[in-house]
Amino acid sequence: MTKLLIHNCMALIPDEESELPTLRENLDILIDKDKITALRSSDAKTPPQADQVIDARGMLAMPGLINTHAHTPMGIFRGLAEDVTIERWFNEFMWPLESNLTEEDVYWGMLLGLAEMIEGGVTTVADHYFFMDKAGEAVTQAGARAALGWAVFGDRGYKALDATADFVTRWQGKAEGRITALMAPHAPYTCDDDFLRATVARAKNLGVGIHIHAAETLGQTEASQKKRGLTPIQVLAETGVFDVPTIIAHGCGILAEDIALMKEASAPIGVAHAPKTYLKLGMGLTPILPLQKAGIPVGLATDGPVSNNTLDIFESLRLMAMLQKHEARNPEVMTIPQALDIATRGSAAVLGMADKIGQLSPGYLADIILVDMSGAHHQPLHRPLASLVYNTRASDVQTVIVNGKVIMQDRRLLTLNKAEIIRRVGQNMTRLSRRVPKNRVQLYQPFR
Amino acid sequence: MTKLLIHNCMALIPDEESELPTLRENLDILIDKDKITALRSSDAKTPPQADQVIDARGMLAMPGLINTHAHTPMGIFRGLAEDVTIERWFNEFMWPLESNLTEEDVYWGMLLGLAEMIEGGVTTVADHYFFMDKAGEAVTQAGARAALGWAVFGDRGYKALDATADFVTRWQGKAEGRITALMAPHAPYTCDDDFLRATVARAKNLGVGIHIHAAETLGQTEASQKKRGLTPIQVLAETGVFDVPTIIAHGCGILAEDIALMKEASAPIGVAHAPKTYLKLGMGLTPILPLQKAGIPVGLATDGPVSNNTLDIFESLRLMAMLQKHEARNPEVMTIPQALDIATRGSAAVLGMADKIGQLSPGYLADIILVDMSGAHHQPLHRPLASLVYNTRASDVQTVIVNGKVIMQDRRLLTLNKAEIIRRVGQNMTRLSRRVPKNRVQLYQPFR
Repeated sequence: MTKLLIHNCMALIPDEESELPTLRENLDILIDKDKITALRSSDAKTPPQADQVIDARGMLAMPGLINTHAHTPMGIFRGLAEDVTIERWFNEFMWPLESNLTEEDVYWGMLLGLAEMIEGGVTTVADHYFFMDKAGEAVTQAGARAALGWAVFGDRGYKALDATADFVTRWQGKAEGRITALMAPHAPYTCDDDFLRATVARAKNLGVGIHIHAAETLGQTEASQKKRGLTPIQVLAETGVFDVPTIIAHGCGILAEDIALMKEASAPIGVAHAPKTYLKLGMGLTPILPLQKAGIPVGLATDGPVSNNTLDIFESLRLMAMLQKHEARNPEVMTIPQALDIATRGSAAVLGMADKIGQLSPGYLADIILVDMSGAHHQPLHRPLASLVYNTRASDVQTVIVNGKVIMQDRRLLTLNKAEIIRRVGQNMTRLSRRVPKNRVQLYQPFR
Repeated sequence: MTKLLIHNCMALIPDEESELPTLRENLDILIDKDKITALRSSDAKTPPQADQVIDARGMLAMPGLINTHAHTPMGIFRGLAEDVTIERWFNEFMWPLESNLTEEDVYWGMLLGLAEMIEGGVTTVADHYFFMDKAGEAVTQAGARAALGWAVFGDRGYKALDATADFVTRWQGKAEGRITALMAPHAPYTCDDDFLRATVARAKNLGVGIHIHAAETLGQTEASQKKRGLTPIQVLAETGVFDVPTIIAHGCGILAEDIALMKEASAPIGVAHAPKTYLKLGMGLTPILPLQKAGIPVGLATDGPVSNNTLDIFESLRLMAMLQKHEARNPEVMTIPQALDIATRGSAAVLGMADKIGQLSPGYLADIILVDMSGAHHQPLHRPLASLVYNTRASDVQTVIVNGKVIMQDRRLLTLNKAEIIRRVGQNMTRLSRRVPKNRVQLYQPFR
């Protein structure tokens, strides 16, 4: 089967003038192999030829959601670090827990998270974690799209860094091109300047980008300024990180002067915004509006499922929009089209893929989800796009297409055995929840 | 059928010492007629006798959710007032739209909202709207529980006020006791002091409480102080409102001095907190922690579906908890048990029903929901209560019991014809979305 037709849907399409997402009704979407080839009115007299037709009446088609920053396999530790400060979250919970981690855990954890994400309409994830060959195997199997980076701390040394570069070589372009790979140093507070420079050199050599946490909180920014007279963003600029495409995770501590610097970066830079984590850990919020004003792309993210605690981009979208209104005490801020633009083209730009995904247009990759708008919580459907932002639950996603292939149909996962995945993760719960406080993978001390 | 057994569930039960909700596993819940009669270990040697047994393995039983402030039938206008200031929301959208409202609209709108709420685990709603006989009919049919008040503006005069009192007389205790009725003056900025005093007199006569909007924003509070030297809460105290049980909706503009006054009220007073509306309209937030410290109950609410835009109390719960952490920039604030306490016993107390609902204990009314925790977004289930607050979607609710009767089973509504309700609401969309700006039910001008 190569030609697929989505028949008679509503769809989220870029407006011809403003380019912001807008609604089209009675639309047919034609897919040939991995790409969208045409959008046509459903009323066309000559119905398009296709090998498979999906009747999408009452459904809204939109670009598959993109999760621009996650640690998906952390789902195996879900719920184990609640109601604690960020210091305790890292030092007493997360990093001791991760000393339990095995390759097998990452494999099953990644499958679990992919199952959750596909069920919630996420077709692409930028994942930043350990034992990433296993994540690559899981993504290959699930049929999803991913930008994978093997996380590394500076104190692991250059051999470890080289190993993460070898991962890039092994996985770049794999899984019919669905997998891209990046370098993934943890953060400026866990990687010194030389280590960051060495990372940039390897990224340039490999022709890939960098995915890194930076300026996660204002506290981190202030501590960095006090300790060395530079903000974390200034450190990234100084060490050459901004000379390669970069995904900056979080950035709640990004200052106005940082934004000026980011604007001058010689390579594309974007910021991954994961609001649920920020609320739960009291981290503040990414300065989205100033970043956008400076032309720096912002995308949506979940972060890992121990802070979030889910992998739900519809929830991130809704929180992002509402919090911008709340912080500004102005409901006219972050309108529905603007929010949907961040969720689609913004997130694609953060991953450096703005010409490939995040938009339903001919020539784009066929990563498409169908959202069922017929539920009592959507009806009557006066304004489908308002409903998409403020009423849609992950469970409304009916059908998921990646690279032109249907991987979820009528909420049934076609590539993954969910029951088996849940069983395999569940059997290790006792071992996974064991904490030996001194046995941790790293120490969080950005303030020292 | 009178004896019902929920077999082998996890359950949210008040801790014997702290009284905060805690988790019990392997539990049987026995129900006789409309009440919970016993909680027992599922391993008991003599299995309890029952006419109907619900196998609840993998499910978490909790008290049915309570929506302490809604305008449920407004769902018929859903999505029609987005990204606008609160002034425009009222004067250009909501109040002109409501001039289209008919009795029939309220009936079908109430049924629509009840369908959505039951599907999302809400068993009780305090509803504040117009044509409330129709709301009463809908609640009777749905099998839900409700505290209904017929909203009235002061400029409608005392005849209108008397009509709302007559509504109380007609409906108090109806539907096997599932319906209670209250007086529902709109707000201090739309009802003058004499009108509020007259409302209190009628409430006392009838032996019922009052449900009113007050101090919705800090702007309203400041305008009231400037205009007449009193905060909206001081107006309620002065006019005797606090001499009868009162539900205050919103209270984002409640000041420290107001809380001192509320603490001295001679009747029980509670505050309904609807965070999604506050974010979307940039209203600020209810001062939950100071209210709790003063012993004033706080409960969860959705407000109407034009500001919210749904009727999802799980979403309100999650937003409430996360926003308290965010505002305090402290993740230790509003722990999971504290948040669940607000969602259960807190909301019951706001409705003056703390001895009847909001708790799974013998003698309490059998309003119980079963939440399916088996989904990929909950697994592995290390901490069921964390998952209840941070991972649960309205769509995870499987079974809903009100007054000892199953009204939703395996997500199938047993009392309502959802398809017919959606069809009936849908056929009036064109008329419902018509706005004649000068033809409005009221003018929002608290600042004049």
